[in-house]
Amino acid sequence: MLTMQDALRTLSDYWTSRGCLTWQPFNTEVGAGTMNPATVLRVLGPEPWDVAYVEPSVRPDDSRYGENPNRLQQHTQFQVILKPEPGNPQELYLGSLEALGIDLDAHDVRFVEDNWAQPAIGAWGLGWEVWLDGMEITQFTYFQQVGGQDLGPIPVELTYGMERILMAQQGVTHFKDIAYSRKPDGSIVTYGEALGQQEYEMSRYYLDDADVDVNQRLYEAYVSEATRMVEARLPVPAHQYILKSSHAFNVLDARGAISTTERAKAFGTMRRLMRDTAALWIERREELGFPLLKQAEATEPVAPALPEVASDAAPETFAFEIGVEELPPHVLPQTIGAVRDAVTAGLAASRLEHGEITVDGTPRRVFVVVDAVAAREPDAENLRKGPKWSAAFDADGNPTKPLQGFMRGQGVDLDAVVKAEVGGNEHACVRVPAPGRGVLEVLASIITDTVTGLRAEKNMRWSDPELSFSRAVRWVLALWGETVVPARISGLETGRRTYLQRGTAASPQARPDGTVVGHHDVATASDYLGKLAAGRIAAFTEQRRAAVVEQATALATAADGTVDFEANAALVDEITNLVEEPYGVLGNFDERYLELPDRITTSVMAKHQRYLPVRAADGALLPHFVTMANGHCDDAVVRAGNESVLRARYEDALFFWNQDLEAETVESFVPGLEQLTFENRLGSVGQRANRIADVANRLGEAVGLDEQDGATLSRAGRLAKFDLATALVTEMTSLAGFVAREYAVRKGEPQAVADALYEMEQPHTTADAVPASTPGGLLALADRFDLLAAMFGLGAKPSGSSDPYGLRRAALGVVRILRELPALSSLTIRAGLEAAAVRLREQGIEVGDDALDAAEAFIIGRFAQFQRDEGLSSDVVTAVAPSAGSPGAADAHARALVELADDEGFGKLVEGVVRISRIVPDGTEASYDEARLTDPAELELHSAVSAVESSADLRRFAEVGAALVAPITRFFDETLVMAEDPEVRAARLGLLATVLAKAPQGLDWAAVDSVAN
Amino acid sequence: MLTMQDALRTLSDYWTSRGCLTWQPFNTEVGAGTMNPATVLRVLGPEPWDVAYVEPSVRPDDSRYGENPNRLQQHTQFQVILKPEPGNPQELYLGSLEALGIDLDAHDVRFVEDNWAQPAIGAWGLGWEVWLDGMEITQFTYFQQVGGQDLGPIPVELTYGMERILMAQQGVTHFKDIAYSRKPDGSIVTYGEALGQQEYEMSRYYLDDADVDVNQRLYEAYVSEATRMVEARLPVPAHQYILKSSHAFNVLDARGAISTTERAKAFGTMRRLMRDTAALWIERREELGFPLLKQAEATEPVAPALPEVASDAAPETFAFEIGVEELPPHVLPQTIGAVRDAVTAGLAASRLEHGEITVDGTPRRVFVVVDAVAAREPDAENLRKGPKWSAAFDADGNPTKPLQGFMRGQGVDLDAVVKAEVGGNEHACVRVPAPGRGVLEVLASIITDTVTGLRAEKNMRWSDPELSFSRAVRWVLALWGETVVPARISGLETGRRTYLQRGTAASPQARPDGTVVGHHDVATASDYLGKLAAGRIAAFTEQRRAAVVEQATALATAADGTVDFEANAALVDEITNLVEEPYGVLGNFDERYLELPDRITTSVMAKHQRYLPVRAADGALLPHFVTMANGHCDDAVVRAGNESVLRARYEDALFFWNQDLEAETVESFVPGLEQLTFENRLGSVGQRANRIADVANRLGEAVGLDEQDGATLSRAGRLAKFDLATALVTEMTSLAGFVAREYAVRKGEPQAVADALYEMEQPHTTADAVPASTPGGLLALADRFDLLAAMFGLGAKPSGSSDPYGLRRAALGVVRILRELPALSSLTIRAGLEAAAVRLREQGIEVGDDALDAAEAFIIGRFAQFQRDEGLSSDVVTAVAPSAGSPGAADAHARALVELADDEGFGKLVEGVVRISRIVPDGTEASYDEARLTDPAELELHSAVSAVESSADLRRFAEVGAALVAPITRFFDETLVMAEDPEVRAARLGLLATVLAKAPQGLDWAAVDSVAN
Repeated sequence: MLTMQDALRTLSDYWTSRGCLTWQPFNTEVGAGTMNPATVLRVLGPEPWDVAYVEPSVRPDDSRYGENPNRLQQHTQFQVILKPEPGNPQELYLGSLEALGIDLDAHDVRFVEDNWAQPAIGAWGLGWEVWLDGMEITQFTYFQQVGGQDLGPIPVELTYGMERILMAQQGVTHFKDIAYSRKPDGSIVTYGEALGQQEYEMSRYYLDDADVDVNQRLYEAYVSEATRMVEARLPVPAHQYILKSSHAFNVLDARGAISTTERAKAFGTMRRLMRDTAALWIERREELGFPLLKQAEATEPVAPALPEVASDAAPETFAFEIGVEELPPHVLPQTIGAVRDAVTAGLAASRLEHGEITVDGTPRRVFVVVDAVAAREPDAENLRKGPKWSAAFDADGNPTKPLQGFMRGQGVDLDAVVKAEVGGNEHACVRVPAPGRGVLEVLASIITDTVTGLRAEKNMRWSDPELSFSRAVRWVLALWGETVVPARISGLETGRRTYLQRGTAASPQARPDGTVVGHHDVATASDYLGKLAAGRIAAFTEQRRAAVVEQATALATAADGTVDFEANAALVDEITNLVEEPYGVLGNFDERYLELPDRITTSVMAKHQRYLPVRAADGALLPHFVTMANGHCDDAVVRAGNESVLRARYEDALFFWNQDLEAETVESFVPGLEQLTFENRLGSVGQRANRIADVANRLGEAVGLDEQDGATLSRAGRLAKFDLATALVTEMTSLAGFVAREYAVRKGEPQAVADALYEMEQPHTTADAVPASTPGGLLALADRFDLLAAMFGLGAKPSGSSDPYGLRRAALGVVRILRELPALSSLTIRAGLEAAAVRLREQGIEVGDDALDAAEAFIIGRFAQFQRDEGLSSDVVTAVAPSAGSPGAADAHARALVELADDEGFGKLVEGVVRISRIVPDGTEASYDEARLTDPAELELHSAVSAVESSADLRRFAEVGAALVAPITRFFDETLVMAEDPEVRAARLGLLATVLAKAPQGLDWAAVDSVAN
Repeated sequence: MLTMQDALRTLSDYWTSRGCLTWQPFNTEVGAGTMNPATVLRVLGPEPWDVAYVEPSVRPDDSRYGENPNRLQQHTQFQVILKPEPGNPQELYLGSLEALGIDLDAHDVRFVEDNWAQPAIGAWGLGWEVWLDGMEITQFTYFQQVGGQDLGPIPVELTYGMERILMAQQGVTHFKDIAYSRKPDGSIVTYGEALGQQEYEMSRYYLDDADVDVNQRLYEAYVSEATRMVEARLPVPAHQYILKSSHAFNVLDARGAISTTERAKAFGTMRRLMRDTAALWIERREELGFPLLKQAEATEPVAPALPEVASDAAPETFAFEIGVEELPPHVLPQTIGAVRDAVTAGLAASRLEHGEITVDGTPRRVFVVVDAVAAREPDAENLRKGPKWSAAFDADGNPTKPLQGFMRGQGVDLDAVVKAEVGGNEHACVRVPAPGRGVLEVLASIITDTVTGLRAEKNMRWSDPELSFSRAVRWVLALWGETVVPARISGLETGRRTYLQRGTAASPQARPDGTVVGHHDVATASDYLGKLAAGRIAAFTEQRRAAVVEQATALATAADGTVDFEANAALVDEITNLVEEPYGVLGNFDERYLELPDRITTSVMAKHQRYLPVRAADGALLPHFVTMANGHCDDAVVRAGNESVLRARYEDALFFWNQDLEAETVESFVPGLEQLTFENRLGSVGQRANRIADVANRLGEAVGLDEQDGATLSRAGRLAKFDLATALVTEMTSLAGFVAREYAVRKGEPQAVADALYEMEQPHTTADAVPASTPGGLLALADRFDLLAAMFGLGAKPSGSSDPYGLRRAALGVVRILRELPALSSLTIRAGLEAAAVRLREQGIEVGDDALDAAEAFIIGRFAQFQRDEGLSSDVVTAVAPSAGSPGAADAHARALVELADDEGFGKLVEGVVRISRIVPDGTEASYDEARLTDPAELELHSAVSAVESSADLRRFAEVGAALVAPITRFFDETLVMAEDPEVRAARLGLLATVLAKAPQGLDWAAVDSVAN
């Protein structure tokens, strides 16, 4: 059995024997090995740098007194940087796992998309978390940017999580039980014996005992030194003080003493300092002459020669495979589509004859097979257009100057000039022969364009000099029949080699089960798919999906259960694109975890682990799951590994679940909210919860609640947000609201109260439902109004991409609730903001009217954006804008308007209304002295108006208003509104104002007119 | 070639394979691996702990911008803790050197006394620095106390200095050139490439750019957290904050911002915190049940059985060897003496017959050989004493009660009672036979007493349960003839095995040159010395000393030089006791180092390296040295190693020497003094230097200087202490004064000025000379008066053993200069202090009169102590005490008094003076109206007094005063001083006062009387 220290030494030996320099852990607390200058500074600039080191990484927030089996305030990372990335970092990495004694044939090792970004240091990269039987054991990242600096050459970072690896390898379930070292007599010192006391005491410090004021002062002192060192052009001490400030910040955070504002501010500071430091580092290295930059001899790549293909050669199959490192699941179908388009278009643009085009792929390859591709394009002619025929010859039939010029340009004599029709006119033309190109030339060009054109939403660079894609492209197979289609695409050269499932060092070509692994040279294009099949690679997406369904069904059936593929459709898609050969393994977990609510249990399975849940016939969850390994493996090994991962996650959740449920009542959590900071100027979360309750009650009064709803609102308000003080939500913040409902029900609160607590967090996302109940809706509104009024009051409105408080989401929530919850549709945005402001002012927080104006405008702006996103035209949005303060009303108008847009009668009515609205001054009263009206047109309009009921609904108005169209037209035709007699004029204006008053309010009629016509 | 990372891995492998746990460097800056909790906390308490780790250790004060070849702000330690020490740590350690590829047969590896103490953390231990060819490569310590806690079991600490080892092994002369790692293509990354920039930038931070205020605040914040964590009973975070505070302190110190007061205060704080933390750690571990304490089975030691020795067996040689780990050189002769005394006394107390006793030893053994020790003690009788014979029998001749009681007590009948003389009286006695003990019993007892009785000035404990000595006792050989003298001495058992020079693993028994190495079992006692000789161990001190002289002479002669053994007598003694077999190697150094003054060159050689300097016939230093290796080695290897050590040291010195001499004038250093803090309340060193100059000038005026001395003083005052701002003195503070003189001469200052600058630092020690010149003496005095007045003004007087400002030494300097420099003997202590106080007050520093009183009393107290140390009796000291304010005068009195003590005439004179002084009230004028004297006795005294000149010198007074003895006696016999007539009374008192006035002043006559009689 490998002990912790054996493992560290093994990794160190492995990587140093591959040229890595051994570095030491940093002498300042770092949150990760990445922050050691050996990574974060050395990846900058052009110098090569291969390094490996242990880094005990400190994360105060992960302190658990050593009680949590998997979480530690100090965990051990093994960090490797290879710069430039060597072209085969995955293979090197797998070699290190073998060195650790991990049998790659038995285990399921997967590269699962996990992109890394640390905005606080202006850094990001693309890559994976590496899974060993479902457990994340390594972070594998191609760094792209650090300190806001684009990197080049691109480094790859490997970060091994040693505790996880050792727990998995030793089969222990608590970090304390890891065998840390072995004495000569064979006795073991455990991790707990070596580090347990430290884990407890440092947890105590970080969670309970650190002095907040002192750490605040430390933070400031560190920032000040870092700033000064940047000014002094000393990046090394500057970086050291950035680390110290980061640790002080983390200590404060673990003590719950960091508000959202402070966090944003601190991140801003850190980002700025890190950016400056990174730039400075590069400058300083340049001044030093980039000491580690040893000039490699540049060899100019030679373009591959095209082999001769006989022009009468028979058509052949074309096989083309783009080999990539594991693509993210959602990128695969996009890439298949893009490659299909590119190849199809490329062939269409050529004159090559060909048969069917097949394009599909797996996470590691996208391939194209085209049947019967001809050896050559047929020859053809191109017509070059000269002057018009009529202008080509003079009266004597001699070439005019223009034709002479054309011939000169084309280098031809007159006898080559022909007459031809081009664009409906006759021109003097020259026919130029276009000999058909050979197949290899055409295909090489298509291949090159396709590969260089690969793009995803997020692209990265790697060691290739020019390519950029979601993940590194590592090989290109291109065969026309037996012939390699020769092409050089940036750093790649086409060939006949494909790579199957990765083998172990011990079995590069075949596993005991007969599967061919490793690489394989394909003899001829038509063999290609067969070779993939022989390597047990399910090349086709549908083939894999079917295998997933079939195997999962079989495994679930064996456990007397079923898998709900419909409910898990997205997950099945993801799994299909995560593996090259789905290999299902059934796992089990302890029934006691079924105690947890389904949502928790299954979300851990699906979201974190990509397991399919197994259910009984009645839909009840069974203590089983199906995982799909990437190819054949040792079922028992893979099952045990995955089970232990799930066990750890469930154990965690259950621990907190049970701990929380030991409380007598849910109300007992409420005082805990006082300990949580929301925003330092706005007080605690407890204070915010109180404000929300009060505002919700005030809004409830405004809409009028029945007794039942009133009681529900009152109680739910009292408990608002209590679950933020529970251990479970502290761990899994996405469960806020959900946990409130679960606990409330279990602790005897009425179901309506529980639901309201759940609903007050809705909608989480655009796709999420709005609260179903009135009390829930009121709390949700009050929550958002409080947030918006407060933040605008503090002047903290979102800017650019920065929206740390989620004000955009909050605004949209307000709009959606007001729009979608009929009982609350009478509330206006302004009323809600006013209510929140009143309550905030009671707490001594200034919220000026201009802040409310700004908040209202912001929400309305979001509403308009939302309407446009829903497909409404700008005209419609403008037309209903005057109602936007009441989104329900605006929405009704908009829907009506969309319906009426093509209604001719409505169009005429609107035309009339618009004419009226243009002439009637604002504020004209909708009344008039009937006696002053004498013209027949006036009288007709009077009588028509009198017969029309006023209408708030546009559709209704369109109906009843139809009777007004003709009288309005006649009125304007025959009557001069601006009569000289002021009383007559007043009566006429009053009559017109009355027409307007019958129409629905809250519309911009000019815009309505644009919509309707 | 081993790279740095190879070496670290090799050591790590070596020690982990021996059961050490691999620990990681600490995530907070530490000055040494010792400070990592894996050492400083884990050595506390009863738990076993074997650990090894790399520790990049940070010492801001050692920052040199990466320019100094040997000194770095961050250097790499490899740290090993073995607890309990395993009994053979030296052998294990040597094994690790072999693992590093160091050929122990070729190199000279020595264990040179170097005791470790870190008062700031209440820690100390005894041990060595390990020398590899003269270079210190490892610190090897038996920890005794940490955090003020006595340790048990005793741990051994090994700290490898990796840069030094690698430089030596790779043969490079600058740390930047160390090969740090090797790439697969064989190319090397150097230490400079890996860490050079960091070294430069962190040096910049520590020396130039760190913000003093910020670091001060950090220091305070850390101390406050450490204090709180002690209160919270969390030793781990407490310790972490102690480390942080220590680093902040070191940063401030490197910036020159720590005054002596602050240093003392900070050390006090740290000591207190570390003591509390250490105590807390042990408590907490006990609460946790000492988790690592796995109970070993206790086996009760069985006392060894005594073999039978035939009582008529022939006498045999007795050989007894105490094997120790390398004793400090000065301990060896003391131990030889102690063993000789113990064995001689032990044999004397026995009745064993024996021949000559020989005792001697080497650093690793003290041995005793006794010729012809008899097999048994002869039988004898003991006489037990009863009641006096006269009281033993009643009138009837029957035993009295006392006798009966005696017989009962002795268990004998009357017929056993005999009459015997005891103490001059006849007693009833009983004769009890005392059979002779066997030789083994007697010798075992002597051996046991001798070994357990071993003590040195500084003693340590090791894994032995009871023994305590300067270094660990590892074996005891004890043979009487062929028979082992069986004894168990605490954890040791006697045997016949001796240990010769340590062998390598490859040659445990014999080296290629035929020397027997390793251990050897001695067959019979008379073989013992022969076996040592066969192992090339020069067992006798004189034998080694002769070898040193002989070899050094031969080697020096070969280089056309000589060694001055007289001047280097102490060094030769030390070398003699440093090695078991002196093996001289001649080394050379570059002639350009001869540019440095002799004192620097030779003090580096002798003090640091124990090399003998080689001189030409004219006494000029030659560029050679002789080192004495411990036994045969490869001359070339050892020479090269030692040369490189010396080169590095000289290079260092020369670098600073040349750098300093680039200055135009020495005056240009003066402004630099403003940057140095002396004591924060007293301003800079520059301010102090100004004060010293001013005070010296004032005192010069008081004594009256000729023009020449005045000019010298003025110029020297202007330059006072300038050398403290030079690079060389910054590095080697003990050269202060000396360097001033050297530089001053070279930069064109007059020799007198240069001398005065040198002398102003004299006397450094009690043995040191006082200044020779008046200007030098004045500056030296002013320096010390300033210090004393200032410190007493601040209330910072020494207490107990704490004297951080060296006030005791300063006081003694004052006394010695005033006493020994005639030109200044007229100055009083008080006058000096007053002058200093005036000048201090001009700078705004309050120095009250009571402070001056205290300072004066303090100096006088030191003077008195010094006088007693010189052998003056308390009476003499008391007698001259009234003059102590003027030490020259007091001293003259004292010398006279000692001479006159036995002079009878003087005694009578003093008797008279004392009589007079008792009767004459203080303040009586020494004048009288001659006309009032009428009595013959009065008149006789009057005429005698009139004839006596007054005398300040006691000897002179003794001469001339002889004429007064008889008249005084007569006067008192015949005259009533207190006559009724007041005028007569006044005249008589005036007469007597006149006698007193003729006597020397400044004496306590009562005490003089005690001396003289």
